[in-house]
Amino acid sequence: MNKYAVFHKPDSNFAYASAGNRLTVILRVAANDKLDKVEILFNNKYRFTKKRFELEMERCAEDGVFAYYRADVTLPDSRFAYVFRITEKCKIFYFSEDGLKEDYEFELAYYTFFQFAFINRTDVMPIVEWTKTAVFYQIFVDRFARGDFEKDDDYINTPWDGNIDRYSFTGGDLDGVTEKLPYLDGMGVTALYLTPIFLSETNHKYNIIDYLRVDPQFGDEEKLARLLSAAHARGMRVMVDCVFNHCDRKHEFFRDAEEKGRQSKYFDRFLIDGDFPDYEKGNYAHFADCKYMPKWNADNPETRKYLIGIALEYLRMGFDGLRLDVADEISHETWRQLRREVKEKYPQALIIGEIWHDNEQWLKGDQLDGVMNYKLQKILIDYFGELSVKAEVAAGRMNGLLIANSGQANAMALNFLDSHDTPRFLRFAGGNRDRLLCALCAAVMFPGMPCVLYGTEIPLDGGGDPDCRKPFDWNFQNGSEEFAANFKAVLGLKKQRALTGERAEITAENGLLKITRTADGESVTAYFNTSGRAKKADVGGDVILGLNFKDGKILNDGAVVVKNIKN
Amino acid sequence: MNKYAVFHKPDSNFAYASAGNRLTVILRVAANDKLDKVEILFNNKYRFTKKRFELEMERCAEDGVFAYYRADVTLPDSRFAYVFRITEKCKIFYFSEDGLKEDYEFELAYYTFFQFAFINRTDVMPIVEWTKTAVFYQIFVDRFARGDFEKDDDYINTPWDGNIDRYSFTGGDLDGVTEKLPYLDGMGVTALYLTPIFLSETNHKYNIIDYLRVDPQFGDEEKLARLLSAAHARGMRVMVDCVFNHCDRKHEFFRDAEEKGRQSKYFDRFLIDGDFPDYEKGNYAHFADCKYMPKWNADNPETRKYLIGIALEYLRMGFDGLRLDVADEISHETWRQLRREVKEKYPQALIIGEIWHDNEQWLKGDQLDGVMNYKLQKILIDYFGELSVKAEVAAGRMNGLLIANSGQANAMALNFLDSHDTPRFLRFAGGNRDRLLCALCAAVMFPGMPCVLYGTEIPLDGGGDPDCRKPFDWNFQNGSEEFAANFKAVLGLKKQRALTGERAEITAENGLLKITRTADGESVTAYFNTSGRAKKADVGGDVILGLNFKDGKILNDGAVVVKNIKN
Repeated sequence: MNKYAVFHKPDSNFAYASAGNRLTVILRVAANDKLDKVEILFNNKYRFTKKRFELEMERCAEDGVFAYYRADVTLPDSRFAYVFRITEKCKIFYFSEDGLKEDYEFELAYYTFFQFAFINRTDVMPIVEWTKTAVFYQIFVDRFARGDFEKDDDYINTPWDGNIDRYSFTGGDLDGVTEKLPYLDGMGVTALYLTPIFLSETNHKYNIIDYLRVDPQFGDEEKLARLLSAAHARGMRVMVDCVFNHCDRKHEFFRDAEEKGRQSKYFDRFLIDGDFPDYEKGNYAHFADCKYMPKWNADNPETRKYLIGIALEYLRMGFDGLRLDVADEISHETWRQLRREVKEKYPQALIIGEIWHDNEQWLKGDQLDGVMNYKLQKILIDYFGELSVKAEVAAGRMNGLLIANSGQANAMALNFLDSHDTPRFLRFAGGNRDRLLCALCAAVMFPGMPCVLYGTEIPLDGGGDPDCRKPFDWNFQNGSEEFAANFKAVLGLKKQRALTGERAEITAENGLLKITRTADGESVTAYFNTSGRAKKADVGGDVILGLNFKDGKILNDGAVVVKNIKN
Repeated sequence: MNKYAVFHKPDSNFAYASAGNRLTVILRVAANDKLDKVEILFNNKYRFTKKRFELEMERCAEDGVFAYYRADVTLPDSRFAYVFRITEKCKIFYFSEDGLKEDYEFELAYYTFFQFAFINRTDVMPIVEWTKTAVFYQIFVDRFARGDFEKDDDYINTPWDGNIDRYSFTGGDLDGVTEKLPYLDGMGVTALYLTPIFLSETNHKYNIIDYLRVDPQFGDEEKLARLLSAAHARGMRVMVDCVFNHCDRKHEFFRDAEEKGRQSKYFDRFLIDGDFPDYEKGNYAHFADCKYMPKWNADNPETRKYLIGIALEYLRMGFDGLRLDVADEISHETWRQLRREVKEKYPQALIIGEIWHDNEQWLKGDQLDGVMNYKLQKILIDYFGELSVKAEVAAGRMNGLLIANSGQANAMALNFLDSHDTPRFLRFAGGNRDRLLCALCAAVMFPGMPCVLYGTEIPLDGGGDPDCRKPFDWNFQNGSEEFAANFKAVLGLKKQRALTGERAEITAENGLLKITRTADGESVTAYFNTSGRAKKADVGGDVILGLNFKDGKILNDGAVVVKNIKN
């Protein structure tokens, strides 16, 4: 067998606890190795040298290069030692911390077995219960809906149906969101993600001047409370955008540092190179190339206390989740402290981070619950949007993505087609609405929580910022009844019991992408076809959603069929 | 090139910060791939799509299957994006989060580059300064030396020169250690590791009844203070064994739980399955199969506070380091809290954990500083002791071990030949003292801190527990002056400036194991030969230590030559 491909890492996404006595163990091998059998040999670590249990592992996924074998092991006790035994053409290999060997000395195994030394309570990452059926909707507040027509609206510089640029203000506000809750509820939305709403001079408000004052363009603390209680009355959750990486240079702490330099008690709250921050020189850490957004020194204990205090205040106000902006540029230690303090008081509060890249180091149960799933978005863009990859590649990348984290972290990822930071999905799909619906269906079928950017359902089109941030069209001029009904039906899939399970089987069959979710004896399968040619799928049972499905064939344009089987 | 072998993981032992603007990046490939060039392309993540710096990586290690390329990059700023470019026979490959590709779309790189998003202060794991030249000596107190002849010694059941069993008490104590400090100082020892010294009814005292009362067999708080101040007066540090995984069932908290069951306020301090702990049934978590050692529930906040309070009290007493027994069976969260509280007050306190297996998850800067290096011990046993592997295999395993952690964690590993939990190294070496000295030399040359088990220097022989725990022979009947002089000379190598550097070049050349350390323009190389046949080595410069070295050839029995080059 291919010795270069074999990989396992204990206490990682390849071996994680899902309960006090339950461990998921994954072994990677080369996809094209023809293996007869892969087994895990295990026992209490103090008995392992004498006696082992044996369990055959299941081939659970392929990513194009590698195949993955998985076992969900219920442990005899919490101290777990294990090695792998691989059979290939009647030849046996052992894989342990000592590498791949044709023989293994069990008597000396205490030097080389893999272990999960003890599953302590805090070693098990819990899933926030309400996320299991959550359907999120992301609202860019200035562009979603205006509800307050009595406010001072001198700041509005662009009519709702006008052409926007980066500096447009169109008048959306919290009252608008409150007013539209019945609409969202009717669509099947169960949770909102609001981009920042606190005092800021931009339309996006990612540069915050005062973290606890609702921006008067959007409303006030009372209007926010009204929105939160109206949402909660419908059983909807609300997640707030926490911009803790940086603030606006008009934030009082930075102004104090600008004025007093090193003498300011806030000087060390920022990362300033020199005696005074100098806007012209930009001699301080800031977000991207934006000198007007000074970066917090979150490792300063006072800064941390301040920012975490704000997060706690948001939750006290009634928010149900925190979306941490630019989460990857802040230290792990800061997020650990935030999580400890947040979860102690609000164990069901969801913590989502914006991380576009490899993210396992944030998702081990000590920091974030989940991330904005940009990696899934890219697969959906490539497969359903730009048609630049085939089903095999899409399935492989999806499997690779799932393998990269624990089941719990996958379950709490936010799966979206578009965000306020990328072109609209419809743009990638060349305006093809069927492919958009199919991509949405894949985002729902994929482990995690689907998240719809405001307007994708009508559907709004648009390129990169600011074009992806157009105001919502409440006249639904672009919409079609059929599209809206299908959109709602796709989101409704999330209610299927089969989708509450952690696992997904993702394969390419006959050129189709096939995603199956299974839980509690129920199962749902979706088939996707973006090949441009009609293809046969082995579809039985009740078809509960079908697009371009005819005579047992799936037609082109990303057609999707979802098959629901109750066992 | 071999696509199965290529591996990199951001924010791990493959990419770690050693300073606010310095990152070590490692790429793994197949050892037998013939690559012309491996480069890292990098820049600030916000500029990466437009422009990259290019740096050729250095082939730094092989482990028998894989080769590793390394770059130590000084960053233009702390936000670091990178991909690898590999040239093989004029063919170019790119390796990113998107995998190994023949082409790479830099315009879309923000989806797929590797990143170290920002190096925050707490993302850099510091090296405890005094460890850079530390030579440790492990003392099993009952067996090292007796100094107090006025104590109540009824408990002594075995004469100092008698035959010991698992239940022997031979009378060693803290006064004995204090008395022998000049001896240890003379040998070059700079730090002591004392096995447990607090109230316990066994000779090893790993089952503690009272964590803050010095066991009367060993002395009292005053004698401990005298030992600590005498050691400090010589510039020696002292590390205490912290047994926080379990206690003795006679500990007052467990007794209370035994008496009152669920009504006891200490009930949840342990992991009890039922209403009362029952010794006969053993219905509570305990160490190994030892029902007399109930395991703490360290995830209980009160237990954590109690145990961490004890650690802080040890440091207040004057201890300089903590050796955490059975560190891997306690939660990561417990160690994170311990580290925070310990390092806040005592930033130079060393935290070493007993972990025999894969340990990266404890060594990322948030928990332990280093581990008891059992993996190195096994290599030394195999190569120098049992002669069961050749130089190529030993070099490969050593390189694999170094790659598995950051340079900082490697620098703070405790490198020993024998511990109180394994047979004496001399036993593995069939009594061959030259091979013992060579193994010691390798332990000194290897990154980390050498640690001598009491008596290895005379040398004491012995099999597994209790045979490895014989009393020290203060008549030196077994010793030879030459052996003692060589032993001291080998330990003295640790003072070489070249050994303060993080890196080691470890190869097999002409059947010899060769270890080179380099720092600040100085370099030291050691050659080892366990082949049983004389072998030629390319040795130039000043030979500062030589065993069985003659006419440019290294003779058998694990001969060692150390070459010192000052540039």
